[in-house]
Amino acid sequence: MDNDKLLKANERIDQLYSQDVQIIQNPNCFAFSLDAVLLADFVRPNKKRQTKIVDLCAGNGAIGLFLHQKLGGHFTEVELQQAIADMAERTVKLNHLEERYDVLNMDIKDVYEKIPKDSADIVLCNPPYFPTNEHSQKNPNQALAIARHEIKTNLMMVVEKMSGLLKMNGRGYLVHRPDRLAEILTTLTSHRLAPKRIRFIHPKPDREANIVLIEAIKDGGDGGVRVVPPLVVNQANGEYGTEVQRLLYGDKK
Amino acid sequence: MDNDKLLKANERIDQLYSQDVQIIQNPNCFAFSLDAVLLADFVRPNKKRQTKIVDLCAGNGAIGLFLHQKLGGHFTEVELQQAIADMAERTVKLNHLEERYDVLNMDIKDVYEKIPKDSADIVLCNPPYFPTNEHSQKNPNQALAIARHEIKTNLMMVVEKMSGLLKMNGRGYLVHRPDRLAEILTTLTSHRLAPKRIRFIHPKPDREANIVLIEAIKDGGDGGVRVVPPLVVNQANGEYGTEVQRLLYGDKK
Repeated sequence: MDNDKLLKANERIDQLYSQDVQIIQNPNCFAFSLDAVLLADFVRPNKKRQTKIVDLCAGNGAIGLFLHQKLGGHFTEVELQQAIADMAERTVKLNHLEERYDVLNMDIKDVYEKIPKDSADIVLCNPPYFPTNEHSQKNPNQALAIARHEIKTNLMMVVEKMSGLLKMNGRGYLVHRPDRLAEILTTLTSHRLAPKRIRFIHPKPDREANIVLIEAIKDGGDGGVRVVPPLVVNQANGEYGTEVQRLLYGDKK
Repeated sequence: MDNDKLLKANERIDQLYSQDVQIIQNPNCFAFSLDAVLLADFVRPNKKRQTKIVDLCAGNGAIGLFLHQKLGGHFTEVELQQAIADMAERTVKLNHLEERYDVLNMDIKDVYEKIPKDSADIVLCNPPYFPTNEHSQKNPNQALAIARHEIKTNLMMVVEKMSGLLKMNGRGYLVHRPDRLAEILTTLTSHRLAPKRIRFIHPKPDREANIVLIEAIKDGGDGGVRVVPPLVVNQANGEYGTEVQRLLYGDKK
């Protein structure tokens, strides 16, 4: 099969059935998780062809690809790690979406060299979640460690670039850990990003949230934060709930 | 009946069965709502006799009274409006709890004149929710307007006094509206209060949260925010869910 030519060692192709998209994955360095599916689902539809979308810390490009139908316009995927940016590039080809997607292999700290400030309508980000300033267990696998821990970037940097890239009234979307919620909302607010819609994800009905999705509007006013109904991933019996099933497998008609 | 001597015009006695406590209410100037029941439920038990508890914007003292079993120690209820502070005073008598409760009829801006800074283990607050700086509809009833709108105090003042009154590692409890969540967490953080536990209350399963409960620790570290499972007040059929039934009526054994 032709697609196999796109694969390197240890890589596989995973399909997100609900979005009819295929993603090149390599569990040894980067594989998208449910977080990416949830963030893509959380983004508001915007079909305009001139929409400019940037994905910071894009990994293998999964989130952007999941949005190929819901968002019109052009995606720029920014990924620091060369091998992972290369997977993103080949994933775009695999889905025949080269005309709408660019992959930039670069550090987001330098992103304005390639993408002008105040130019994006939408900025997406699934950043490394874990601070490294204390007893955080770093992953002995360096590629995974960089994707998960704040080794090469951190929340402040991510939020600063998200804000800088967005036009006034542009929308930023962030997926993160609720245990840093106060820091996240404070950092967004201090960077002209007004949190406007928040969704918490609970692994089970009786468990604390372990994922938070946030939509913020650049230069939005105070107040008006909407905390929408939470998503519970697994039912009490351990099986996926109906909403997660729909996100992963689509509507079964 | 003797209790009737404690009542003035338009007042009635409501009972919170789950806590075996009676509250003097006057719908024309102040009556506790579900918010007060929820905040009391959210507070961690602490039976130590030397615990010092302050309730700011105490109203008729409902929240403090609801906690007479769960918290040991001494309560100081601070209420600005004379007629409402008087209801609180009589409510304490009605429940024969004079030894453990004091009511101060004063503006919280002057609270340090009566309660020393850094002296409280727990500070509770169910403040006015609505900003007055824009098109907010003020209640034509002045007493209710003061209880609900930021006419005589505001979030900044409430948080400043909560922080000032608490000892290091003391716990502040706030009930508020989620539409101001970003402002609330930012204000707490900037006043040495680290949000540590948050619960959202949704009126129905498919509706956005309309109440948020927050526990903050004075001089607590960054991170470690726990977003506990939400409470849904009404089931899809419109009836109270089992948790709210338990909060209002107690365990039916």
